[in-house]
Amino acid sequence: MYIDLNSDLGESYGAWKMGNDEQILTMVSSANIACGFHAGDALGILNTLKQAVKLGVTIGAHVSYPDLVGFGRRNMDLSRGELIADVLYQISALAGLAQVAGASVKYVKAHGALYNTIAHDAHQGQAVIDAIKMFNPDLVLVALAGSALIEQARAAGLRVVAEAFADRAYNADGSLVSRRMDGAVLHDTDVVAKRVVSMLQHGGVQSIDGVFTPIQADSICLHGDTAGAVEMSQAIRAELIQNQIQIRPFCG
Amino acid sequence: MYIDLNSDLGESYGAWKMGNDEQILTMVSSANIACGFHAGDALGILNTLKQAVKLGVTIGAHVSYPDLVGFGRRNMDLSRGELIADVLYQISALAGLAQVAGASVKYVKAHGALYNTIAHDAHQGQAVIDAIKMFNPDLVLVALAGSALIEQARAAGLRVVAEAFADRAYNADGSLVSRRMDGAVLHDTDVVAKRVVSMLQHGGVQSIDGVFTPIQADSICLHGDTAGAVEMSQAIRAELIQNQIQIRPFCG
Amino acid sequence: MYIDLNSDLGESYGAWKMGNDEQILTMVSSANIACGFHAGDALGILNTLKQAVKLGVTIGAHVSYPDLVGFGRRNMDLSRGELIADVLYQISALAGLAQVAGASVKYVKAHGALYNTIAHDAHQGQAVIDAIKMFNPDLVLVALAGSALIEQARAAGLRVVAEAFADRAYNADGSLVSRRMDGAVLHDTDVVAKRVVSMLQHGGVQSIDGVFTPIQADSICLHGDTAGAVEMSQAIRAELIQNQIQIRPFCG
Amino acid sequence: MYIDLNSDLGESYGAWKMGNDEQILTMVSSANIACGFHAGDALGILNTLKQAVKLGVTIGAHVSYPDLVGFGRRNMDLSRGELIADVLYQISALAGLAQVAGASVKYVKAHGALYNTIAHDAHQGQAVIDAIKMFNPDLVLVALAGSALIEQARAAGLRVVAEAFADRAYNADGSLVSRRMDGAVLHDTDVVAKRVVSMLQHGGVQSIDGVFTPIQADSICLHGDTAGAVEMSQAIRAELIQNQIQIRPFCG
Repeated sequence: MYIDLNSDLGESYGAWKMGNDEQILTMVSSANIACGFHAGDALGILNTLKQAVKLGVTIGAHVSYPDLVGFGRRNMDLSRGELIADVLYQISALAGLAQVAGASVKYVKAHGALYNTIAHDAHQGQAVIDAIKMFNPDLVLVALAGSALIEQARAAGLRVVAEAFADRAYNADGSLVSRRMDGAVLHDTDVVAKRVVSMLQHGGVQSIDGVFTPIQADSICLHGDTAGAVEMSQAIRAELIQNQIQIRPFCG
Repeated sequence: MYIDLNSDLGESYGAWKMGNDEQILTMVSSANIACGFHAGDALGILNTLKQAVKLGVTIGAHVSYPDLVGFGRRNMDLSRGELIADVLYQISALAGLAQVAGASVKYVKAHGALYNTIAHDAHQGQAVIDAIKMFNPDLVLVALAGSALIEQARAAGLRVVAEAFADRAYNADGSLVSRRMDGAVLHDTDVVAKRVVSMLQHGGVQSIDGVFTPIQADSICLHGDTAGAVEMSQAIRAELIQNQIQIRPFCG
Repeated sequence: MYIDLNSDLGESYGAWKMGNDEQILTMVSSANIACGFHAGDALGILNTLKQAVKLGVTIGAHVSYPDLVGFGRRNMDLSRGELIADVLYQISALAGLAQVAGASVKYVKAHGALYNTIAHDAHQGQAVIDAIKMFNPDLVLVALAGSALIEQARAAGLRVVAEAFADRAYNADGSLVSRRMDGAVLHDTDVVAKRVVSMLQHGGVQSIDGVFTPIQADSICLHGDTAGAVEMSQAIRAELIQNQIQIRPFCG
Repeated sequence: MYIDLNSDLGESYGAWKMGNDEQILTMVSSANIACGFHAGDALGILNTLKQAVKLGVTIGAHVSYPDLVGFGRRNMDLSRGELIADVLYQISALAGLAQVAGASVKYVKAHGALYNTIAHDAHQGQAVIDAIKMFNPDLVLVALAGSALIEQARAAGLRVVAEAFADRAYNADGSLVSRRMDGAVLHDTDVVAKRVVSMLQHGGVQSIDGVFTPIQADSICLHGDTAGAVEMSQAIRAELIQNQIQIRPFCG
């Protein structure tokens, strides 16, 4: 058995630091790197790319709505043309910087509100799919496990990787419990680590409603910017290794 | 004899229009396309790129300081690392969009304050040169005819193209007369058209002081965003053609 | 009889010009001035304020979502706290600049997507209402004639002015015909001018469905940034004057 | 004896946190609050203002060049008109938010590169002085102790407060040792605390060259965003109190 671990990186902006890229990069197999629209200045992105290359971590473009002050977490109704061009611009910027750093972009993952919206909104989802295909149809799309986007992107000819969250509670239907609900985020390091292994071994988790919910995940998202992020990531890695689950990128 | 004609394009921003890209693109051989730092939103840039490709116009990255509200016209003392990364980000974004549009970026030209600064400031100039070399050492640098940057970039191994201005007055030493001085900008269409041909035929122009000033130009910059820009460009083209001077890009 | 004429102004941004503030200001009684979030740089706003003061035009704050590249025309789901603070910041900035120009802000009008959203969305509408009351409860709110916002704001204690559009078609229920529909925007200067007078004299217009639709308007919005904007505004003014309808601000 | 303690606050931006406003506000008498150009989103600024009001801390506008990604630390050659309008916009925005929070702006301090530039550049300095006088001639200007700006602003009729730095080394001529030099920043909490008291008692400090340098300071700037900032501020306060030096704002 094996699994990919991914995390959001390159999210500092100028004088503002976010997360601990140097440490998190030693623990993940795939790095979702900000492209400047929700986070990331050029120099910071380049430095994170160089570290990722040094550590052999696979690089993905973490594309977002153009909303720096809102960190890409607010829905925006871009036109299809705007969304395609914005996604292309971001992948392009990251691809060029990655090339300079000695690597290439292998996948695309949407960030924040765009991530949540395209999980179910076929219109915006198609714009993201089409942008990826225009840029490079060999790029992989990372999408929420169980979301409609997965089938939509596969039908369009993209390779898709399904992602689950280590520290989030799930509803019975496989959707994430809203962050506004109690119990949406799990904080106990040991519980989360065991839960990840169990999810992979049993193909699902116990939902917040108490029933088993199937989740087929190719990659687990680790949060890098929360308190205790490093410790939780270490615990998850240790638990995976102890259970003979290999950590490796979904694409090389 | 032949000459390249270039112009600044893709400088609209969202709802704000600047210049007349569609018309100017029919008259130039090289298009300096904004990359989003002084002007240009992703969708607008992509549309200008598509038109340039359709018309067979060579594409260059028009890189700038990060100053949208100042249109890149104000000096900024970026660190070497910041300037390199900002230039790389801009070339990268444009290169990816250009590829989607069916072409590739062939050269780099600095915009506004960055253009003027690197003409003589070896420190910032080197950062731009190094960024170009990191991205792709085959890219050509377009620099002010007579500037120190030309030798600096050639010494660093870049191919450099010298650029002169159709509608600007020159000092005796070959530098441009400051826009703050009377007579800095020439407005008479006929005078400007004849002056361009004369500059190419005689290897220089009469300076504002009345003496002949040598100017070796491989490309002439046409302004696209001024009143009468289209008419002046047409007059220059007509005068060039009448004098058997072919208009063609300095690189294919 | 009398009516207020308002227009969106101060919408240039740095090197990009939009509209013709100098001419439009001679024709309106109220100026909705951009505050920097969808348009307007500080120097441009200040200059427009000075012209408005010189011409005795009443000044309003034209507040928007923070979306410069989208010109505030795209919906954004800001939190209540973010929206209140963003509206306060914009009114504050304009109020201070207006004071320096020798006048004061008398009213608030939302721009673009925010305008359309709060016409019916009570949640965002309340945030805007509350922000206005926090800043100065004597400020007037300009709202779409017939919208739910009018009653909501009056119930909250604000003075509200209802606004109609000179050149837009109306549905039978009093709502605006979507710009995506044919016939949504009227372009015939003479038709529009007569329609404005008729709307005021009869308290409504013929809807796109052919039935009479009541519209109680205290102010008519003139578009300043479209081709022929100046001519249409002149025609409307002439028609109003010829019909003894006085043009004057809804608040002094 | 008494002294004012000031610190830079409100410098978080959206999802990015900077400094520890809540703790620092309990230790200073004056708060230099970001206005959105180098840092500070509207909601974050408003929250910091509310805390400052609750704790009775005097509020100043911390105005900057428009350079978010560079945190206002890079020189920019704005035109006089641009700089005046940008300063007015920032003071205005903060003044309105402060009024909503229940207080008013009492002083202006320039941030980063603008602070350093106007210390000696009379041209930009005059633009800042004129902007303050246009907005409210009763506002106090906080300027670097020993700088030419102090006399310039006093000659223009402004009240000026001279500021010294607790943790910075001084040259023999009273200027700050450049951060690029070794020993420019003092890190020993105890040394810094004693140095502040000594500076106030003796009207100067020992310069990096070993000679006594006179420094007449009305306010001491505490850094809020460095590691150990809270501890150093506590140590300085303790040392001041122990030496019967009262901490109070330079203006109420």
